[in-house]
Amino acid sequence: MLEGNRGRLDNPFYFDHFMKRTEIATLGEFGLIDHLTSDIQLIQESSLKGVGDDAAILDHGAERTLVTTDLLLEGIHFDLVYTPLKHLGYKAAVVNFSDIYAMNGIPRQITVSLGISKRFSVEDLEDFYGGIKLACEIYGVDIVGGDTTSSLTGFTISVTCLGSIKEEDIVYRNGAKDTDLIYVSGDLGASYMGLQLLEREKTVFDGSKDFQPDFAGKEYLLERQLKPEARKDIVALLKEHEIVPTSMIDISDGLSSDLLHICKQSNVGCQLFEERIPIDYQTAVAAEMFHMNVTTVALNGGEDYELLFTVPLHKHDAMESVTGVRLVGHITKPEVGSYLVTRDGQEMPLRAQGWNPIATE
Amino acid sequence: MLEGNRGRLDNPFYFDHFMKRTEIATLGEFGLIDHLTSDIQLIQESSLKGVGDDAAILDHGAERTLVTTDLLLEGIHFDLVYTPLKHLGYKAAVVNFSDIYAMNGIPRQITVSLGISKRFSVEDLEDFYGGIKLACEIYGVDIVGGDTTSSLTGFTISVTCLGSIKEEDIVYRNGAKDTDLIYVSGDLGASYMGLQLLEREKTVFDGSKDFQPDFAGKEYLLERQLKPEARKDIVALLKEHEIVPTSMIDISDGLSSDLLHICKQSNVGCQLFEERIPIDYQTAVAAEMFHMNVTTVALNGGEDYELLFTVPLHKHDAMESVTGVRLVGHITKPEVGSYLVTRDGQEMPLRAQGWNPIATE
Repeated sequence: MLEGNRGRLDNPFYFDHFMKRTEIATLGEFGLIDHLTSDIQLIQESSLKGVGDDAAILDHGAERTLVTTDLLLEGIHFDLVYTPLKHLGYKAAVVNFSDIYAMNGIPRQITVSLGISKRFSVEDLEDFYGGIKLACEIYGVDIVGGDTTSSLTGFTISVTCLGSIKEEDIVYRNGAKDTDLIYVSGDLGASYMGLQLLEREKTVFDGSKDFQPDFAGKEYLLERQLKPEARKDIVALLKEHEIVPTSMIDISDGLSSDLLHICKQSNVGCQLFEERIPIDYQTAVAAEMFHMNVTTVALNGGEDYELLFTVPLHKHDAMESVTGVRLVGHITKPEVGSYLVTRDGQEMPLRAQGWNPIATE
Repeated sequence: MLEGNRGRLDNPFYFDHFMKRTEIATLGEFGLIDHLTSDIQLIQESSLKGVGDDAAILDHGAERTLVTTDLLLEGIHFDLVYTPLKHLGYKAAVVNFSDIYAMNGIPRQITVSLGISKRFSVEDLEDFYGGIKLACEIYGVDIVGGDTTSSLTGFTISVTCLGSIKEEDIVYRNGAKDTDLIYVSGDLGASYMGLQLLEREKTVFDGSKDFQPDFAGKEYLLERQLKPEARKDIVALLKEHEIVPTSMIDISDGLSSDLLHICKQSNVGCQLFEERIPIDYQTAVAAEMFHMNVTTVALNGGEDYELLFTVPLHKHDAMESVTGVRLVGHITKPEVGSYLVTRDGQEMPLRAQGWNPIATE
């Protein structure tokens, strides 16, 4: 159908039936975005940086404005069978704040657009908005606009977040240098294991409303999946200790994929040490229960919303005062490549096997 | 399902099975938005105005930043059977620019988030982006970011637009005063008649790819529906003649609904003269063909993206120099109410029967 309907703009009813068709999977998510946006040129004086980092950067006088946006679709990014709407609202806001923190900025405003279906009641939307409002209250962000419309299909959420930052404080993905140290905040893989737990219980959830699954001892995993937090505290700590990372990204696709983003954009290689990757006890127990390799979970699970950043080697001592982060490796020259150094000393090439909603479709 | 899954944020697994359920249709689109957003307070110094006008307003030093966002969903806002993707991209961008112009501002940057399904090829997305890029080129706007993900269901488009404006030039919806004159740009109802034509041909479109429907003499209607423009020129003309409207809105829901927005937010009434409503010849012919009342079409069709604005009575002579707009009525005291004065001198209460994707679901 679509092939027959690709008109030229000067004639809406020009149909071209034998056009080339390239499957999107051949490019992958990042390839597709590159393909579609590589020829975009910025003409506005106030557009300092467009597509390609955690947020765009606009020149608004004394400060810069950061802009980031996320689209969350039912069945792709969340499952309403086990996701309470209040949590979903909270998460939809927080994942955007996380992108602003990943530039070393402060989130200031969000807009929230929703596509809702008939099965939703006003109370459902109150719950959802309640989660958004709670997140905004906790992180000090204003809701300044949005759009609400019907959806014939699933629940659709689009959040755009604006943040502010001083020019000299901006941290891009492309500033990592050879010998820089690589740090990661918190611990990794818990959100992914929480998702596995919820997926396992899903059939039971569907069948009986009175069933209360026993998640005792696994609360942390569920919290990480259903109600993640953005690392506002780490950004504040770095500022307090006057440390400006050379590069930074938030871990949404997975440590492996996001570290490769930094390496690619900074034109460097890296060595990541398996034994240094921070993993919570509950994550390790759950991985064993599911017969999964916990390192693979930490590398590729994603949705951690922790900060991954690099600092110059000489900042090593200063970093000792920054609590809640761990040194996991160091940056190398590009020709060395990007490797995971395993516990037994082997070097495995890092690969972007992260959660990719386009490639894995 | 949803009723059983509305947890409290402190306990994700608290289920409350007998919660109240209010159907969204009981509130309608605007009622729902009011209901969900009425308790939102702005805490950021830079948040000057949030929900409630065409765009939010942020204080960024010398200039204000305007923010607006639109969510477009397949099956609700567009039908890919007869909408070429390049046109859809163009329209998705332009309707956001229109919101910025409706504040008297200048659109500067957009972000574009897409949810795409398997049936889309890379070429389809190139077409869509081609339309967005063309609109940005023509209106001088930068694409600075976005998000692209899979969709299990329909094509999902979320566009956020940032604009700029000087404090003293901002035009809200709430500034109309008794005796102000009401103007509208261009002509109304054409987009709605274009939609009717396309819907009528849809069955034929589906059945045979080689069929080329005969839209001779109706091109204008199709163009208004498939490739609308935002009234950048009117904003420029008003500036040139040093006229700052007392209130302004763009006509997306329909003249009737959008004029009532101005009246409600300005706490005034209005008299709108049927004989003054601008209607194109093609619109009139098509309305007759479809046995529709052309005034009803102009009042409630929507998607015109024309500017509706009010100016003080003493600007009447100055307005003579502003081409492309028509005086359609005047503002009254609130107790008078909001009326359409028909050709035969009767007064009919104006009603918001505009295109409302939530109420009419």
